[in-house]
Amino acid sequence: MTGDVGEATAASFLRSALAADSAVFPLAGFPAWLERQREQQRLEVRRIPFAALDQWHFAPDPCRLVHRSGQFFSVEGLRVETDFGPVRSWEQPIVNQPEIGILGIVSRSFDGVRHFLLQAKVEPGNIAGIQLVPTVQATRSNYQLVHGGRSPTYSEFFLQPGRARVLVDRLFAEQGARFLRKRNRNVIVDVDQDFPVEEGFVWLTLGQVGQLLRVGNLVNMSARSVLSCALPALDGANALAGLAAPGPFGASLLESLQAPGGVQSQAELLDWLFGLRARHRMRLQAVPLDRLRGWVRAEDEIRPESSAHFSVVAVDVTAVGREVARWSQPLLLHPATGLNGLLVQRIGGVLHLLVRACLFPGNDELFQLGSTVSRADVDKLAGAPDAPAFLEHFIAPPPERVRYDALQSEEGGRFLRYQSRYLVVELPQGQAVDLPANFRWMTVRQVATFNHFGCVNIEGRNLLACLDFSA
Amino acid sequence: MTGDVGEATAASFLRSALAADSAVFPLAGFPAWLERQREQQRLEVRRIPFAALDQWHFAPDPCRLVHRSGQFFSVEGLRVETDFGPVRSWEQPIVNQPEIGILGIVSRSFDGVRHFLLQAKVEPGNIAGIQLVPTVQATRSNYQLVHGGRSPTYSEFFLQPGRARVLVDRLFAEQGARFLRKRNRNVIVDVDQDFPVEEGFVWLTLGQVGQLLRVGNLVNMSARSVLSCALPALDGANALAGLAAPGPFGASLLESLQAPGGVQSQAELLDWLFGLRARHRMRLQAVPLDRLRGWVRAEDEIRPESSAHFSVVAVDVTAVGREVARWSQPLLLHPATGLNGLLVQRIGGVLHLLVRACLFPGNDELFQLGSTVSRADVDKLAGAPDAPAFLEHFIAPPPERVRYDALQSEEGGRFLRYQSRYLVVELPQGQAVDLPANFRWMTVRQVATFNHFGCVNIEGRNLLACLDFSA
Repeated sequence: MTGDVGEATAASFLRSALAADSAVFPLAGFPAWLERQREQQRLEVRRIPFAALDQWHFAPDPCRLVHRSGQFFSVEGLRVETDFGPVRSWEQPIVNQPEIGILGIVSRSFDGVRHFLLQAKVEPGNIAGIQLVPTVQATRSNYQLVHGGRSPTYSEFFLQPGRARVLVDRLFAEQGARFLRKRNRNVIVDVDQDFPVEEGFVWLTLGQVGQLLRVGNLVNMSARSVLSCALPALDGANALAGLAAPGPFGASLLESLQAPGGVQSQAELLDWLFGLRARHRMRLQAVPLDRLRGWVRAEDEIRPESSAHFSVVAVDVTAVGREVARWSQPLLLHPATGLNGLLVQRIGGVLHLLVRACLFPGNDELFQLGSTVSRADVDKLAGAPDAPAFLEHFIAPPPERVRYDALQSEEGGRFLRYQSRYLVVELPQGQAVDLPANFRWMTVRQVATFNHFGCVNIEGRNLLACLDFSA
Repeated sequence: MTGDVGEATAASFLRSALAADSAVFPLAGFPAWLERQREQQRLEVRRIPFAALDQWHFAPDPCRLVHRSGQFFSVEGLRVETDFGPVRSWEQPIVNQPEIGILGIVSRSFDGVRHFLLQAKVEPGNIAGIQLVPTVQATRSNYQLVHGGRSPTYSEFFLQPGRARVLVDRLFAEQGARFLRKRNRNVIVDVDQDFPVEEGFVWLTLGQVGQLLRVGNLVNMSARSVLSCALPALDGANALAGLAAPGPFGASLLESLQAPGGVQSQAELLDWLFGLRARHRMRLQAVPLDRLRGWVRAEDEIRPESSAHFSVVAVDVTAVGREVARWSQPLLLHPATGLNGLLVQRIGGVLHLLVRACLFPGNDELFQLGSTVSRADVDKLAGAPDAPAFLEHFIAPPPERVRYDALQSEEGGRFLRYQSRYLVVELPQGQAVDLPANFRWMTVRQVATFNHFGCVNIEGRNLLACLDFSA
């Protein structure tokens, strides 16, 4: 009764976040293990013209880039019109992959500390080869075996009733700027029994994952998204009273996770978010991929006429190592390094995060909550008149104000070596900040509550996963 | 800091709910006032053939019933396919009205008690003529003056910044079984100054509204929907400690609104709701209104071939009284009396509500939370093999177990004399109940929290507004 399960789970997540190492798999052994995985899984990736794609072609009416099977995903053209923001209409390519997939992590208690089973996996777009991904990453076609083959390892824990206890099960949107209405289940289950751990899988505490998140480009985007759910909210936050963080920033995070209110109440924050959703409009229209206004279709690239932004390219992939395979596929190329930045500040003694309401064409719901700044093309914008709000705080932040700084990359199955600098910067107490209408200060508990209701976008979720309770 | 505004507002709502009468407008004077309104606003409504509609006609490709201006709403044909529930595919007419309107109530404190300004208004589909509606009911075309004319009375409090303080601002879906993706802002504002109250408007406490809700067919559906937001959630519920209800059921409601948890934690309830959303599918396809499978288009009615269910009809309306006007329009006719029923039970000492996850074609989001049973065609289903779960508890409930019982009607601007019996029935403590997969027991606080995040459907919101804290 009265939320015991939710509170016990929440406490187990936070205790795991405070466990910086573990005897189950000590981090000291991680570099050697990673090296072994890298040897076993390598991909050779080279760009090719679209005409050299094996199973992919441009289908007509309207022109779009599709797989011969009709499965996987397609790249389509989209026209966007809105009454919000500095740019009111544009055209762009977008990835259409309407299936809901599973991003699932198996967890288990060892000596009273919850560990999470992650998998070493290589994707063609990855920067450093192997990354740690959820226990299971499966599209609906995957796990329903539409393409034949065997079901993904450990998928039974997510698909067969009674095999595991669900701790978190959410439906979250992917990048709304690049995917059209793509959503995935983000699931964490508890397995209360021994089972064989296959080569390439590893049990880690959240504190260990936190150490690896500091390295950069090691814990993939999907894993970060799922782990954002480990920040408890609602009744879960009641259970944290006995916990203590080793350092001042972690202590601020824990306090903010338990604070009963913030500079605004949750009710006022809902007023603000729903008010934006009610007042603004976005209209989408399919357009042929070869006639996108402002874009050029070349032999090996669909790219913007002017800016750097992003382009659609094709790659040929050869897997070498224990398995040999070869395929080709489209990927999205972002030539610049992006920025995913979060400003935080102690206000009234409680740490607050500066959250931005974002409108992206691919999201079902107008306006989700995101980080303070998230931009692909940030390099050229610093100091420009159309620079995004608060960008200046992330250009050369004083080192003593930086609470997190690492390069993290987007999902390597769709993005070709696209990385962003993730930065958490703390403003001095009392420094006044003018808030544009689509920004609000929120406590960690308030952001986590919005996250559990599916209102935080993937950039925001990824930064939540990088908040370091051990700092 | 720390949610003062949210808590103070929440407490003011609950204190108003406990104020059963008021010197501002004593309920003793209500019958005479209502009679006067009835004399001033009367509508004569008679059914006519579609061909006799003045500004409306059947447009082709695909066939649908539209207004000549392209404004207002249209009635279209829809094919629905889903993998959930006993009926997996069907076709039906549906109302398409894509604008987001405002349902706004102005509130003000008199002698420390919050009062709400409601308006007496007649709609062609109303059963007893006049009903009390929100201060402002306006479509976007209304308040943007697309059709010319003057803006709705008091709309400045919702449209002009700084004229009022927003207490609640939410975006809620309308009936998903009859409207395609129709959503309205549900807003309550506070006005801290005198202003002239025009004829036809009345200041009432929530406790007084509660008395009028017991009469039935007096407080309209939109007002009930907005007032459901007066049930606080999240940080708001912290402020209720000092309040006491006069009777045992009201006391149970107050306790349940402050309970820290329930038989399941909020986190587990989110798992359940998102799990349903992730696992199930619904596919919609536009079909011509004159070729709906299972429907007959007659001269004056589009009706189902077999069952009673609902039909599309046309009416001619003449307004008599202070203004004279005449128009014609389509309406939806439901020949039977519906049921909107909620089971409640004390479990572990805390009152819980039996909530059903509902899937309706017109809702943006698969699965919203609704009342235990809501059906238009309930009369013929009692005891039938396809009767909805828990229907038996509402057929002849023992009077000592009934916590609310009144006839309430749907919005008279779209529905012709369609009323449902609203019932709240309390099960004895300890009586075991088997829960189908799409049902959950929740505390009032948990349901109110889902409501503030936009996850409760209009049938559920309407019953929340009828929970009587003075009982």
